Amino acid sequence: MAHAAPTDEPRRSEKWKARRDEIIDTSASVFARRGYHATGIAELCAVNGLGKGAFYYYIGSKEELLAAIHDRVMDEVMLGADRVAAEGGTPSEQLARLGDELLDVIHRYPDHVWVFLHEFPALTNERREQFRKRRREYERRVESVIQAGIDSGEFRPVDVRLTALAWLGMHNYTYLWLKPDGRVSARDIAKPFADIFIDGIATRD
Amino acid sequence: MAHAAPTDEPRRSEKWKARRDEIIDTSASVFARRGYHATGIAELCAVNGLGKGAFYYYIGSKEELLAAIHDRVMDEVMLGADRVAAEGGTPSEQLARLGDELLDVIHRYPDHVWVFLHEFPALTNERREQFRKRRREYERRVESVIQAGIDSGEFRPVDVRLTALAWLGMHNYTYLWLKPDGRVSARDIAKPFADIFIDGIATRD
Repeated sequence: MAHAAPTDEPRRSEKWKARRDEIIDTSASVFARRGYHATGIAELCAVNGLGKGAFYYYIGSKEELLAAIHDRVMDEVMLGADRVAAEGGTPSEQLARLGDELLDVIHRYPDHVWVFLHEFPALTNERREQFRKRRREYERRVESVIQAGIDSGEFRPVDVRLTALAWLGMHNYTYLWLKPDGRVSARDIAKPFADIFIDGIATRD
Repeated sequence: MAHAAPTDEPRRSEKWKARRDEIIDTSASVFARRGYHATGIAELCAVNGLGKGAFYYYIGSKEELLAAIHDRVMDEVMLGADRVAAEGGTPSEQLARLGDELLDVIHRYPDHVWVFLHEFPALTNERREQFRKRRREYERRVESVIQAGIDSGEFRPVDVRLTALAWLGMHNYTYLWLKPDGRVSARDIAKPFADIFIDGIATRD
């Protein structure tokens, strides 16, 4: 962790981290509702019940907050991809499970996903680069499963990049209608989506 | 221009409409770059080379501008859907052509699509209702083609609503990477996307 605790304060540091996450989550809701640019530090302090000094104790800047919202989602997404890779299985099985994991994150973090899909252009310099790198890293996971399926003859020789983008679009776009309190759960969607997509790229008889 | 109009009104009205469209397009670029909430009327006047009075002569309010940006895209999208319906063909052919048409609009109006996908929550009351109605109308076109394919036995008995949402996600999400000046054209994408999706819901042997 970049924000590791100074030597003899592990307890305070964990508390700090927990409080910071809380601030990130609350702020994600505010940004999702009002927009990143339209929300000022004063409003972020108010919704988080913090003075300006305390706010900066947890978060260095508004842009750092935006990056942290993004990281919170990407941490989960990458953990899911790691689980899929560790479990193994056929490329079809892995692609289905990648969908499961991704939809689960979108379902649990609708505000964070809304904010980072909409506001990522506000990130600058290294943060923008870091954001690109992490998204690309995940896309490569999807691409490599598709490539493995082509290599094994399970999938047609599709354009890997374009197919990964189609897959990502189909799944990511659910952020507009997949809600934690909605009638439809991530699981309800993951199976039919996997059926469509995997049949769609399967080798034709 | 040479022949006299019955009154001055229609001629002036066409010019008014053309200038209004120009303002809508320019403002879409500004909103896409800076965000709807962060952009004030003064800035919109400046980029459009208009005084405040002239601005209001063309556009009643910032929210009307947002609705107009949305309408400009939806007009095109519905025209495309009308062409597909008029041409007819099998459900597979129609679904492929719906994709062609939709990707073409996204490709030509990237700023408008960015703005309306991101800023639609800013619409209120009747405008919000109108927005919902028009999007729903288009979704119904997609759903009815899918339903027709199920009825004809061309497609599996998939969940029509969920399948339409999957299709919309796969296509709409291209707004993040399909650029007018990019290497990839709408046509390059439409065919492989249609192949994946239509094979994905085709009746299994």
